[in-house]
Amino acid sequence: MRQPLGEEKVFKDPVHNYIHVQDELIWALINTPEFQRLRRIRQLGTTFLTFHGAEHSRFSHSLGVYEITRRIISQFERSGYTDWPKEERMVALCAALLHDLGHGPFSHSIEEAFEMNHEDWTCKILLGDTEVNRLLKQISEHFPEKVAAVIQKDYDKPIVVNLVSSPLDADRMDYLLRDAYFTGVNYGTIDIDRILRMLRPFHGRVVVKESGMHAVEDYLMARYQMYWQVYFHPVTRSSEILLRQIFRRAKELWASGYSFKTMLDPLPGLFTRELTVSEYLQLDEALIQTVFMKWQNEEDAVLKDLCERFMNRNLYKYVEIKQSDSESFEEIRQAFEAAGLNPLYDLEIDSPADLPYDVFRPEDGLTTNQILLLDRQEGLKEISEVSDIVRSISGIHRGRYQLYYPQDKLQNVKDKLPAGVRTFFDN
Amino acid sequence: MRQPLGEEKVFKDPVHNYIHVQDELIWALINTPEFQRLRRIRQLGTTFLTFHGAEHSRFSHSLGVYEITRRIISQFERSGYTDWPKEERMVALCAALLHDLGHGPFSHSIEEAFEMNHEDWTCKILLGDTEVNRLLKQISEHFPEKVAAVIQKDYDKPIVVNLVSSPLDADRMDYLLRDAYFTGVNYGTIDIDRILRMLRPFHGRVVVKESGMHAVEDYLMARYQMYWQVYFHPVTRSSEILLRQIFRRAKELWASGYSFKTMLDPLPGLFTRELTVSEYLQLDEALIQTVFMKWQNEEDAVLKDLCERFMNRNLYKYVEIKQSDSESFEEIRQAFEAAGLNPLYDLEIDSPADLPYDVFRPEDGLTTNQILLLDRQEGLKEISEVSDIVRSISGIHRGRYQLYYPQDKLQNVKDKLPAGVRTFFDN
Amino acid sequence: MRQPLGEEKVFKDPVHNYIHVQDELIWALINTPEFQRLRRIRQLGTTFLTFHGAEHSRFSHSLGVYEITRRIISQFERSGYTDWPKEERMVALCAALLHDLGHGPFSHSIEEAFEMNHEDWTCKILLGDTEVNRLLKQISEHFPEKVAAVIQKDYDKPIVVNLVSSPLDADRMDYLLRDAYFTGVNYGTIDIDRILRMLRPFHGRVVVKESGMHAVEDYLMARYQMYWQVYFHPVTRSSEILLRQIFRRAKELWASGYSFKTMLDPLPGLFTRELTVSEYLQLDEALIQTVFMKWQNEEDAVLKDLCERFMNRNLYKYVEIKQSDSESFEEIRQAFEAAGLNPLYDLEIDSPADLPYDVFRPEDGLTTNQILLLDRQEGLKEISEVSDIVRSISGIHRGRYQLYYPQDKLQNVKDKLPAGVRTFFDN
Amino acid sequence: MRQPLGEEKVFKDPVHNYIHVQDELIWALINTPEFQRLRRIRQLGTTFLTFHGAEHSRFSHSLGVYEITRRIISQFERSGYTDWPKEERMVALCAALLHDLGHGPFSHSIEEAFEMNHEDWTCKILLGDTEVNRLLKQISEHFPEKVAAVIQKDYDKPIVVNLVSSPLDADRMDYLLRDAYFTGVNYGTIDIDRILRMLRPFHGRVVVKESGMHAVEDYLMARYQMYWQVYFHPVTRSSEILLRQIFRRAKELWASGYSFKTMLDPLPGLFTRELTVSEYLQLDEALIQTVFMKWQNEEDAVLKDLCERFMNRNLYKYVEIKQSDSESFEEIRQAFEAAGLNPLYDLEIDSPADLPYDVFRPEDGLTTNQILLLDRQEGLKEISEVSDIVRSISGIHRGRYQLYYPQDKLQNVKDKLPAGVRTFFDN
Repeated sequence: MRQPLGEEKVFKDPVHNYIHVQDELIWALINTPEFQRLRRIRQLGTTFLTFHGAEHSRFSHSLGVYEITRRIISQFERSGYTDWPKEERMVALCAALLHDLGHGPFSHSIEEAFEMNHEDWTCKILLGDTEVNRLLKQISEHFPEKVAAVIQKDYDKPIVVNLVSSPLDADRMDYLLRDAYFTGVNYGTIDIDRILRMLRPFHGRVVVKESGMHAVEDYLMARYQMYWQVYFHPVTRSSEILLRQIFRRAKELWASGYSFKTMLDPLPGLFTRELTVSEYLQLDEALIQTVFMKWQNEEDAVLKDLCERFMNRNLYKYVEIKQSDSESFEEIRQAFEAAGLNPLYDLEIDSPADLPYDVFRPEDGLTTNQILLLDRQEGLKEISEVSDIVRSISGIHRGRYQLYYPQDKLQNVKDKLPAGVRTFFDN
Repeated sequence: MRQPLGEEKVFKDPVHNYIHVQDELIWALINTPEFQRLRRIRQLGTTFLTFHGAEHSRFSHSLGVYEITRRIISQFERSGYTDWPKEERMVALCAALLHDLGHGPFSHSIEEAFEMNHEDWTCKILLGDTEVNRLLKQISEHFPEKVAAVIQKDYDKPIVVNLVSSPLDADRMDYLLRDAYFTGVNYGTIDIDRILRMLRPFHGRVVVKESGMHAVEDYLMARYQMYWQVYFHPVTRSSEILLRQIFRRAKELWASGYSFKTMLDPLPGLFTRELTVSEYLQLDEALIQTVFMKWQNEEDAVLKDLCERFMNRNLYKYVEIKQSDSESFEEIRQAFEAAGLNPLYDLEIDSPADLPYDVFRPEDGLTTNQILLLDRQEGLKEISEVSDIVRSISGIHRGRYQLYYPQDKLQNVKDKLPAGVRTFFDN
Repeated sequence: MRQPLGEEKVFKDPVHNYIHVQDELIWALINTPEFQRLRRIRQLGTTFLTFHGAEHSRFSHSLGVYEITRRIISQFERSGYTDWPKEERMVALCAALLHDLGHGPFSHSIEEAFEMNHEDWTCKILLGDTEVNRLLKQISEHFPEKVAAVIQKDYDKPIVVNLVSSPLDADRMDYLLRDAYFTGVNYGTIDIDRILRMLRPFHGRVVVKESGMHAVEDYLMARYQMYWQVYFHPVTRSSEILLRQIFRRAKELWASGYSFKTMLDPLPGLFTRELTVSEYLQLDEALIQTVFMKWQNEEDAVLKDLCERFMNRNLYKYVEIKQSDSESFEEIRQAFEAAGLNPLYDLEIDSPADLPYDVFRPEDGLTTNQILLLDRQEGLKEISEVSDIVRSISGIHRGRYQLYYPQDKLQNVKDKLPAGVRTFFDN
Repeated sequence: MRQPLGEEKVFKDPVHNYIHVQDELIWALINTPEFQRLRRIRQLGTTFLTFHGAEHSRFSHSLGVYEITRRIISQFERSGYTDWPKEERMVALCAALLHDLGHGPFSHSIEEAFEMNHEDWTCKILLGDTEVNRLLKQISEHFPEKVAAVIQKDYDKPIVVNLVSSPLDADRMDYLLRDAYFTGVNYGTIDIDRILRMLRPFHGRVVVKESGMHAVEDYLMARYQMYWQVYFHPVTRSSEILLRQIFRRAKELWASGYSFKTMLDPLPGLFTRELTVSEYLQLDEALIQTVFMKWQNEEDAVLKDLCERFMNRNLYKYVEIKQSDSESFEEIRQAFEAAGLNPLYDLEIDSPADLPYDVFRPEDGLTTNQILLLDRQEGLKEISEVSDIVRSISGIHRGRYQLYYPQDKLQNVKDKLPAGVRTFFDN
């Protein structure tokens, strides 16, 4: 497992052209059941309901993150930078490849619904009774712990952590390029060759040569556009709301002793939060979608309706409300209830700021969230000190709220709503 | 349903940039459960196990076929060609959009295993008790039959049939472009704008202006490359063989009264070939993959092994044999059996020529399989009469055979094989 | 000339794929000597010395502007918008095609050096004794004046002027896409299909449907990047400075009666500003480069040196100075002179703000410089009112200055410069 | 000159994204006047008159050839192949960069008209009193001769020659990609990453790993398409015929003592074939175009007419004749003369087979013209032995002839031609 492959192997990839595998261990890890499972988890959850091309999986994204990391390290080694600890190559490559191993189906929604965290699951898989664990141990007894430490950001070589998780890491670079490619939007076409060429290991961090500033600006602008045009798209948010409601309803029904016509393992364990690693690994989007299809025939009207909506893409509509209107949200909810709607399922308020995605916000202060430029004369500078454009786009668009609701149901009771509430839904 | 939409709607598409929807009926058809189901059927079946980007669905392909057809008709109308019957626009658009409605999960394999035909199912869905049928009937009582007739190639306006099914139809143009895009291969980049501009309605057929010959040559070369590099890729063939074996084994077990730990409707109906339309519509790849995941725990060793292989991408290996060796196939099978292997599951012979895909073969003689060039002076000519390159690539690559087998099992018994058989597997 | 062409003709174009010519007049105009001359004028002047791919001509750009205009008008006509005056189609297409007809070789530099204006020359060519004029007159006696009026922005149908010249016109859209393509930079990949689809004729202006706001934001960001990364690139500025110095020196020498070894008509007329239209049409970049090549052998040391530098790309170096240092510019010039350098040719100060290019600056106030969004409910809004990002990038980067100088000459006298001046040039 | 650059320098390139310069010598060579002159020679001669985007120069192509060669060598070094002589890196890079140094303006036409050869001139420039020669000598006294020997294919290390000149060399790979990019045609999109990865140094040759066969097929098909769609395009041939006629006429006039109104050095030396290296280096397309523009005012009616046609793109028309008609060519010429046309200038016969471009034709027999595949078991095989498709496209399209003539002049005398001749020109 320590050896290089006799002959490099490649995967054809639409984003990076080829993914190059040069180590026996990497090849073996890709072929584990745990890694192959990522083929059955979409990279962008329900986004395919908004952008139909976005059907790509976490499998291809993980290969992409590995490939970018490989290129960065290869450049560090070729240039002989002494700030890069050469012996950390394999731990960095494994962390890059495996960092998403713990993602569940429709990850963000399921995590919210069941208070889970994919990073925890990644570490459980790395350290548990799995094929991946057995392979990593062949390197050394504590190699799985090392990889897990990098992913949990407490590895003792900060540069490895920084390489794998930072605002300019391989993860973000791959998903910008890949998500732009598969959705078909034009934003996100960053000059990755130039960015990679500008990265330097420096005092335990990966920093950017100052002459790479414009490429980084362009990267941050692409990211800004992707967040607001793709990741925070209200139609995608709407389908995620449906998902969360389905999970919530099923959990309630399970807790109340409701007898499901169809139930598949390991869902009960998910409801009671008692999943083992091997059960968790059975959770994929095929299983979730299959259950949802079957639940269209359940007795419970709420669950049935939500599942029909999800399967047939009959999503909730939305209206935008201003932050100042947010106090009126309670008023609307009460009016919905008074009009006979279900106040728990027929109305949701949502703001993208609640999302677990991050936009680059230097004011958050954490140094690991900063992009640093390296000037030969003046040393390190945080990019927003130097770049007007980065300063300009930080913090834009905060405080937008959307109300989501089933248009058909609302229509039926619209004349029962007070005029003040009705105007919100008048177009 | 007869009206145009108040305002054109668009879908962002990575291949055509935008899909333009201008008619209320088309919009409504896209939103039916039957059409949304195509999101859960991959366009290229198991090809994603060879090219990881190929995770795109028949939903996006169907939109693409519709869009190309819309552009062709729009060009015919703009140019005022009298050979194009304007009143057929809507039936042509519907046939283009809905032609793949009857595809099942992993379509080619399931059709072979259960002797079904997706075209039949498309027509059953068009004519049965479905949302799609109800919408089509709003145009006229017999509109569903008309659309079905176009798809079955017996509509009484041959130009509509020819527009929707021919060697240069919207279906083939979309899949070449789309499959090239999502797999990431470079072939398949055809100049679709030029081809579309060269199409002419002419005496009940869609023909190509002679000056478009080179664009057509380029299209046929792209297709040639896509067939041999992507569609007939031995790794994809290998995964399809696994699929067929799983289906075959499950059917055998069902017939023999085996008691499955996990069984999901409507699979029994599939085994007995007694599916209703509404049951058929529940068949999607999520359900199939979920069952396969569960069947990894079945008692039956053959089914269990096949499902584990499929889920974890532990595919059969292959060797190429020459056509002249094909008589030795029986000898090899017997040797396998003698060595203790399962002669029905541990060895498969396969030739791409058996595939339901078509390569352009003018000698097949059917005029509907021909591409005709229109010369103002000399009239119609079949393209291979005029093009050296088309003549050259026709019929190349026939007669290749591959043997597929489980490498791990073979390894265990290799020394029990006669030397003559063993040499086939020696590298 | 009034008729459509029997059959549409096309030009293959790397940016728009095909340029479609449908009118006899457009075809004839493209084939005039005056329009063919644009093949010998580069679109980006000396930018090819910075980005070697930027060798494209104003000929291809002019075709592109025509094509985009054709598409906009065609969409207006298809949608039947009553605010678009259909009878203005041909005058708009001609103005789009011919708007750059008066550009001279290395246009911006030559205009500065000889106080000329390409718009004036465009009009002189349209109205003078030219092939273009004769063709336009075949439409009607005053048709050339109409086309000229559109270009000079005083045509009596403001919507035609607005279509041809506005912050979102076909000219800007083509050059962003084209310059990005030929330089190879990644910025500038705007979603032109979407922008075109969002344009609406409205009360004598071309405005943008509000839902197109993000596409316009993306366009303005692309433009911002192109300006600062490509158009204002200091190396390009450096070569333009050389060009202006050559023109200036040659004019001085001519005025002083210097006898040139090589002189080609119509340069003397350029020096004395007495060019006729037919003389002006002989000015192209081939002639200018040929003269510069020959002037490498002139007696005058200044002219010889400048021409050698230009031909062999031995450009001036530059240092950036802050706005607050600009008063020290005079001090530096005096120090240069004292050290024996030529204060008129060995030092130039430059700020991109002096450039004849425009960045979108809404505060300039002219309504024709504004991009207006059309909201069905609230009417027109200027984009920077609505878009945070547009507001953010407006006005960024003002007030940068660069000093340009011959590094080799400076090196020879560096120790004669006062220390305070020397530090500016110390890296 | 022997050292690597302190920091790698890059050129932004639309085809390869970046050109990487790592050696002081390469950087210095690019900055010589001789290499900068290539900016003033178009890569595709008059092709820009057919495909307006094809305005790119030999400068950018030469950088591209260098870059591909650099990547191949870098792969050889990384993989540690012992068949690659490491000490030859610099001579190979210099030969790749400089191989086109001797190209004149409109190279193929001028070579035919004046019986010159650009390879000879490349060697004269390498070995003569030039900046390039001085730089190369800094490596070693005989380094210029070594570089020249590689270009002339008689260097004593055959693998270096083979790397720089073969049917799969960096030159051909760059021009296919670059010419496709700038013309905008879709052919020519080869998978260069894959091809480069498949190249192996083997017994003094660069061969292809057998698994790269399909990528090579695709490359040869792309080349086939580029030749017949772009390089042999009849409109381009037509403009080259004009060019040759202009050169021929000017040479005749010069020989006859005609007094030119405009004559620029070094044209007389070109006519008499007595150019020195430094005179040759003044020949560029700017000078040729400037002279042609001036010659529109010459007294000689033939020269004047030809130059007007060339400058204003008023090209000869063409008709295709079959090989069997070629005997009738003399008859047509006589008929032209009898009708009062100029038999020497008003009619030209042309067959692309006469062109100095090469299509891959294995039957030519020279082993250096072959592409060899390396099979681990069976050793070397010539590609057309193995590939049906390569065998199929070899030799296609031979024996096409076109007649070129001035349509306007022919029109005037058409009724004086015999009916049999007239039919050739009847459409």
